[in-house]
Amino acid sequence: MQPIISVITLAVDDLVQATKFYHQGLGLPTKGVVGEPEQDTQVAFFKLNNNLKLALWPRESLQRQTSCAVTGHGVLISHNVVSREAAEQLLRKAAAAGAVVNKAAHEQPWGCFGGYFTDPEGYLWEVTFNPDLVSKD
Amino acid sequence: MQPIISVITLAVDDLVQATKFYHQGLGLPTKGVVGEPEQDTQVAFFKLNNNLKLALWPRESLQRQTSCAVTGHGVLISHNVVSREAAEQLLRKAAAAGAVVNKAAHEQPWGCFGGYFTDPEGYLWEVTFNPDLVSKD
Repeated sequence: MQPIISVITLAVDDLVQATKFYHQGLGLPTKGVVGEPEQDTQVAFFKLNNNLKLALWPRESLQRQTSCAVTGHGVLISHNVVSREAAEQLLRKAAAAGAVVNKAAHEQPWGCFGGYFTDPEGYLWEVTFNPDLVSKD
Repeated sequence: MQPIISVITLAVDDLVQATKFYHQGLGLPTKGVVGEPEQDTQVAFFKLNNNLKLALWPRESLQRQTSCAVTGHGVLISHNVVSREAAEQLLRKAAAAGAVVNKAAHEQPWGCFGGYFTDPEGYLWEVTFNPDLVSKD
């Protein structure tokens, strides 16, 4: 795959406290907590370098959206692809290589089209097409 | 902090199998497994985008080097700083913000100078100065 890593997401139990740590504590820029908990879109994004973002996402939302049970620490690495077809193709490739596809590519609540797989060690990846990223190019 | 994220490291139980998955399976470029297990430098790096790397590191090495017990999934996010002083400074800042410093800044076996902290949710970060990166600029 042509790797374009856009977001490193940490599953958190206390979104407010964790946001405070990274923003006030470490000084990472953020717009704070945005989105709606009922739609699993409540999240805090922090700008890192090179278009990379750190995201804090409540554990329940991450579990629900990825269909992956997250006990202990849960990290989701998001990989952007250039089309819906590329998302489906990469998920098939991952499955053929031994990954478990937790959730096939689908319309995500935040307007992207993507799915989730876990690698042979159980690490969770998102493969997603974000139409906004393409149209901005 | 001025975020410069250089490596996302996954603690793995089967380095060979995990390397095969990301290299042969997903096609990520790598030089394969390098380094010495006795020195905790055995690792596989994969080139991602924008100077970001994915690393697979045996769980025991990661635990020993970071002084952090990793049960379940262990992810280490590495953040480069521009000097030894900056590494010490950021670790102090993290501690003041509520992080646990697992290991103060020290000479690391691979020639960097850095330390490790865990955020309030227990996620593990490395803060490190790599003299090679500076001299190549």
